[in-house]
Amino acid sequence: MPIPFTTIVQNLPASTPFVGPETLERQSGKLFRARIGANESAFGISPLAASAMRDAIGQSHYYSDPESYELREELAQKHNVAIDEICVDAGIDSLLGLTVRMLLEPGQVVVTSHGAYPTLNYHVAGFGAKLHAVPYNNCHEDPQALVKASSEHNAKLVYLSNPDNPMGTWHGEETITQMINSVPDNCVLALDEAYIEFAAEPIAPPIDTSNPQVIRYRTFSKAYGMAGQRVGYVIAHKDLITGFNKIRNHFGINRIAQQGALASLKDDTFLEKVRAAASAGRERVVEFASGHGLATLPSNTNFVALNLGSSAAAKQMITELSHRQVFMRMPGVEPLSQYIRVGLGTDAEHEFFVEAFNDVIKKTTLLKV
Amino acid sequence: MPIPFTTIVQNLPASTPFVGPETLERQSGKLFRARIGANESAFGISPLAASAMRDAIGQSHYYSDPESYELREELAQKHNVAIDEICVDAGIDSLLGLTVRMLLEPGQVVVTSHGAYPTLNYHVAGFGAKLHAVPYNNCHEDPQALVKASSEHNAKLVYLSNPDNPMGTWHGEETITQMINSVPDNCVLALDEAYIEFAAEPIAPPIDTSNPQVIRYRTFSKAYGMAGQRVGYVIAHKDLITGFNKIRNHFGINRIAQQGALASLKDDTFLEKVRAAASAGRERVVEFASGHGLATLPSNTNFVALNLGSSAAAKQMITELSHRQVFMRMPGVEPLSQYIRVGLGTDAEHEFFVEAFNDVIKKTTLLKV
Repeated sequence: MPIPFTTIVQNLPASTPFVGPETLERQSGKLFRARIGANESAFGISPLAASAMRDAIGQSHYYSDPESYELREELAQKHNVAIDEICVDAGIDSLLGLTVRMLLEPGQVVVTSHGAYPTLNYHVAGFGAKLHAVPYNNCHEDPQALVKASSEHNAKLVYLSNPDNPMGTWHGEETITQMINSVPDNCVLALDEAYIEFAAEPIAPPIDTSNPQVIRYRTFSKAYGMAGQRVGYVIAHKDLITGFNKIRNHFGINRIAQQGALASLKDDTFLEKVRAAASAGRERVVEFASGHGLATLPSNTNFVALNLGSSAAAKQMITELSHRQVFMRMPGVEPLSQYIRVGLGTDAEHEFFVEAFNDVIKKTTLLKV
Repeated sequence: MPIPFTTIVQNLPASTPFVGPETLERQSGKLFRARIGANESAFGISPLAASAMRDAIGQSHYYSDPESYELREELAQKHNVAIDEICVDAGIDSLLGLTVRMLLEPGQVVVTSHGAYPTLNYHVAGFGAKLHAVPYNNCHEDPQALVKASSEHNAKLVYLSNPDNPMGTWHGEETITQMINSVPDNCVLALDEAYIEFAAEPIAPPIDTSNPQVIRYRTFSKAYGMAGQRVGYVIAHKDLITGFNKIRNHFGINRIAQQGALASLKDDTFLEKVRAAASAGRERVVEFASGHGLATLPSNTNFVALNLGSSAAAKQMITELSHRQVFMRMPGVEPLSQYIRVGLGTDAEHEFFVEAFNDVIKKTTLLKV
């Protein structure tokens, strides 16, 4: 008997948004010595968070608070919004899935940038919606083109990440505010600010939860260093939050992670250290690249896009680095794919990467073609 | 502007399957002193799991292995199936949601028992499918009636939990095997075995992954004591597993929880202790009830259903216990709702419950009506 799947699931390819580094390690039989490909934070977690989580392990047998009340209370204060304008869930990935599910009927359109975050595309396909992608403009997402396409294609949802992944570029407050003000009727802007805490200067427009056309996505996975803990949240008009609450897994958050996130919020010193380390880390990569005469893009994230001149060279570099136990990823589509995405590592990881990169340059014809 | 929700989400009530104990604590301003209402395990987690999780906290900044490879490898060995016949996800709740999503077109039917696990119903509504519920038979789910209704209503999915929640009752291997063999064509049986490790004797039929009409649901939330960690899994025909993999959140598992689950599987001694403690705990509740002349249902879970003679009495008892800092739940629908569900607690929790219960009996007219 064939499995009686829905038409949508039957027709989906068996795809995953990303291959994990562990999968590559199993394939090669070797562990990575520089894990700088998944935008994980090499700067770890707050000691307060670590301590809170250690203490919470003894409560593993309890379900989490399905309302994440204490965490939302703290977040509401931090962002100066009401507690019912926040929804906490198991990471932005999950929240993007819920967003698509609650706004898109099958066949309706989501607008994004060609080469932007693949997990959004995964969810769009997964719920039978249609993706329309506009090109990047000079390695930046193009707010005006996104809005125009949303209007033309009657999109229910338009996605932009600021700062951007995979390029690290960004738009300032004014440009984003203009975009917010020009989102077409009947369309919602998913503004993914996963990397916002890494920005050297404030670039996020003020949060305005009276506007029912914007959802702000934030996470503990990046600057707070808690990718493995799965805690993200959205800030939005309370009617949008009601939508999330109607369909989310109410007991889906890890109890220990809740405690860790809460403790993280109380450690501003740690966050400042991370921001400083990210700035220094970016400079170090830029200097290294420039020593090779290679261009980089300005970045407000924890990675730097480094130009290798062609997709072929970039692909070869990723492969050669992988053979040398360096885990790194690159943008998937032209013309972004002439870049590799150099994640900021620990000192040891950076040095290991530098040696491996230099070795590749020396031993291959990579950049001479 | 009204939010442009899908028709399904627009029409959903803003409901949650369960109110968490923390919500009740916030309402009353008092902490519970016996938390025996959510079928959490009072017997905690394996010391090996605790130790593995403490060690893993330092890796919080890494995403988990999206394939849960090591964990699936261990589970495959334990259940004598292939690794691609297992899918690990953030708890059975999430897996039930994925199941409904991948099998049910809006308007198609899921068959369950009237009063069975509410989170299934939440997902059925959430994806616009239709629920058909058949009555319990003498406080047992009724496999024959479930199969008959599935056939009559052209159901794509039929749900049974064995042992059952909220009643604690169960069917033996033969009855379940008969049910498996009589599931109608084009219908899948969701066999929820969350409580299976608590059973005093083996009641699960052999796992047969060649049958594409059965999904077995297992979890680390109950006997393994890891409810707050969110790790569950399904065992099924590999084509069904492919369906789950097409739509799940690939990076949705907590990395620390993965390590804890893996370590748990290596601690048979702990599991045996839990099973013994559960047996003793059930006996203790039965004895206590019988001291009051109250009937209980036989249970193969970590709770015992205790008959208070009427829904009104049961409701009053839950309320009065709550006033006395005891968190307990009861089945939501007649005729099951004349029972309260006494969770097995620690010694201290049990004594606290006993005192509170005795006090309620003394001070109210509860059982005299």
